Amino acid sequence: MVASVKKRRLGRPVSIVGAGMSHFGAFRGKTSRDLFVEAFQDLMDNLDQGIDVEDIECGYVGNYSSELFEGQGHTAPIIADWVGMTPAPVTRIENACASSGSALREGVMAIASGMYDVVLVGGVEKMTGLPTEGVTDVLATAADVLYEVPAGLTFPGIFGALAKAHMDRYETNLDHLLKVGIKNHNNGALNPKAQFNVTIRQIMERRQARAEQRGETVPDWKDELDFLNDPASNPWIAWPLRLFDCAPITDGASCLLLVSADIARNFTEKPVQIAGMGQASGRPLHDAEELTSLSAAKHAAAQAYQMAGITPQDVQVAEVHDCFTIAEIIATEDLGFFEPGEGPRAVDEGRTALTGDRPINTSGGLKSKGHPVGASGVAQVIEVFHQLRGEADARQLSNPNLEVGLTHNVGGTGGTCVVTILRRG
Amino acid sequence: MVASVKKRRLGRPVSIVGAGMSHFGAFRGKTSRDLFVEAFQDLMDNLDQGIDVEDIECGYVGNYSSELFEGQGHTAPIIADWVGMTPAPVTRIENACASSGSALREGVMAIASGMYDVVLVGGVEKMTGLPTEGVTDVLATAADVLYEVPAGLTFPGIFGALAKAHMDRYETNLDHLLKVGIKNHNNGALNPKAQFNVTIRQIMERRQARAEQRGETVPDWKDELDFLNDPASNPWIAWPLRLFDCAPITDGASCLLLVSADIARNFTEKPVQIAGMGQASGRPLHDAEELTSLSAAKHAAAQAYQMAGITPQDVQVAEVHDCFTIAEIIATEDLGFFEPGEGPRAVDEGRTALTGDRPINTSGGLKSKGHPVGASGVAQVIEVFHQLRGEADARQLSNPNLEVGLTHNVGGTGGTCVVTILRRG
Repeated sequence: MVASVKKRRLGRPVSIVGAGMSHFGAFRGKTSRDLFVEAFQDLMDNLDQGIDVEDIECGYVGNYSSELFEGQGHTAPIIADWVGMTPAPVTRIENACASSGSALREGVMAIASGMYDVVLVGGVEKMTGLPTEGVTDVLATAADVLYEVPAGLTFPGIFGALAKAHMDRYETNLDHLLKVGIKNHNNGALNPKAQFNVTIRQIMERRQARAEQRGETVPDWKDELDFLNDPASNPWIAWPLRLFDCAPITDGASCLLLVSADIARNFTEKPVQIAGMGQASGRPLHDAEELTSLSAAKHAAAQAYQMAGITPQDVQVAEVHDCFTIAEIIATEDLGFFEPGEGPRAVDEGRTALTGDRPINTSGGLKSKGHPVGASGVAQVIEVFHQLRGEADARQLSNPNLEVGLTHNVGGTGGTCVVTILRRG
Repeated sequence: MVASVKKRRLGRPVSIVGAGMSHFGAFRGKTSRDLFVEAFQDLMDNLDQGIDVEDIECGYVGNYSSELFEGQGHTAPIIADWVGMTPAPVTRIENACASSGSALREGVMAIASGMYDVVLVGGVEKMTGLPTEGVTDVLATAADVLYEVPAGLTFPGIFGALAKAHMDRYETNLDHLLKVGIKNHNNGALNPKAQFNVTIRQIMERRQARAEQRGETVPDWKDELDFLNDPASNPWIAWPLRLFDCAPITDGASCLLLVSADIARNFTEKPVQIAGMGQASGRPLHDAEELTSLSAAKHAAAQAYQMAGITPQDVQVAEVHDCFTIAEIIATEDLGFFEPGEGPRAVDEGRTALTGDRPINTSGGLKSKGHPVGASGVAQVIEVFHQLRGEADARQLSNPNLEVGLTHNVGGTGGTCVVTILRRG
């Protein structure tokens, strides 16, 4: 944890009163604007009290790279037009995979500044128009193109290095990583909007059934770990990370309606307040102090806890940035949920499962829900919003006293981290 | 003008206390980060009261497309690192050529929100690494890639269409356009950081002298208009626009130090206050209501005037977005300085010159100072900041009672417009 941080406070509190999400997946023929409209319609359809689009005064769109993915720059006013917000100001925010986490922060400050009362924040990414290698190249531009990319670093390679460092320093092993993925798929299987709403066990059993139907030798995988340790079903991507350690390539959009807290009850009986926010920047990986934690995450978390007046122990549900399985383990340590090196044991003991004392990524996380990079930060907040309001359906946590949740959204290899703390009421 | 706009007010006022700019030009081998560092060092060197970089709490970087120009995404934390701001949060803002106008707005709201007291806002673009056709293609991504770009539209073509529409509707002629460029070069010749700090007359005379030295026929251009009407010296780009109607391709960076107004006097005896801000979005050109004005500019201006409690007649100096000469004429009409169709006559009569009653683009504007697109919005504010503080050197307006200035920053073809009103004190 970071020793001391300056106390910060919003000039006036801000509440979330609505949320919308597109389906996450691979949607041939859908553009960013189509995806964002789908999320926006979901938001409008599910508001407790409806609103005219003309009453939304300002907007922010988190997007990593519609330039490189779709050849479209200046995306914000196009999205404004497609959702009917013109002439309201809409601005694109880019901080790599933390783009919509940062967009949320801008929306919150826009209201707290006194300029606006009703603000839309969201995120979008259309990634599957390029082949996989192309997507990997686009994502690599979030690393340092002078010092890292020419050395051959891509994101699986970078997070592979973090995993190796964690394994060297602590008792982390390959199965710990796999268990993060198994847990997140168990959650994502309960999320109808997830790209892979299927458990690893179901994937395994389907493959066995298909082999049987085809008259092929049926693999005798005994359980998920057995399945995932078979190189034929889970090939190496960048040692020690395999295919099922990596979040998928995803198309999707997400959005939230923010209002000044003093008018939140006009919109819903169940607003969720922004209790704390922290954002921090970190040096590129080639210049990082250590590889087993992200300094920006620790700084951002310290700011958010300070602002919310809570400690990590007060957080009852969290969505963290599991772009790779190792990233979830490191996140739970950086956030102070577990001591450094203790993250893997917490996974082993089921503490981070839906039924654990510290549920992490109840939505399925980036791993199972999908990771349309510009949309992920706000999508994390949407999951916590639903959990705190008791409307997470089959994923709903059983704790009837859920009050406080947290999201942790990382850009690049920790160049940016945004931590947001939400409180019911 | 827009009939009525909602009254908006910042929770607490914000002041500009420092400014820095790199040289604008074509700098082989300099990257965005190099350019931003140059601007930041200029800021730090010229603060009336110095500050430790650790005391800058938050930052925003306007950038249009480091992805497409340099292959570098997630630019903000790299710039944070290079200026020594890590771990302070730094966020990239993108609204095409209005990116740093929007970045300034975010910085102002971040302070007004109560979260921060000292914020850096800036912008940067490194454009000359690509050949000219490549730059034109990158800029075209700020238009609608589904409906406009496939039809062959590039920005010279788009603004050519606006110029043609203005000529059809009003008494605008080709010489009016050229006179905007002549005027802006007259100003830029007085700006040592301008990419082309040279008058059109000087360019003309140098070419005549060179021809004479080489023993070639010396062109008998009588004056600037004569020179600019010669197709050999000023070729057509997209009728009715010629080379000297177009802002150049530029590398450059700009930044401002913002603080809460209540502590501004700790930094300088001559702070400049953010008196009004407006940002608006407009539909893409293919769906615009008319071609002789930009609706976003009118909406943004109306908001800014309302917030500042002034009328267009109160503005004593303005920097407007002259990416093409016609754009300056339209801007001066959209801002209410002149009636629709009266902009060209105002140029003819010298009213917008340094010595006129309504000086426009005293810096040289985008045309002569240069247009590193992500840096231009903040660079406009820097010029007004210097004018209001009486430190614009050879460009300083003679009016000893300068109090109020305005900037007008456009993204795309008016998809975004940001208008900022500055007041001395």
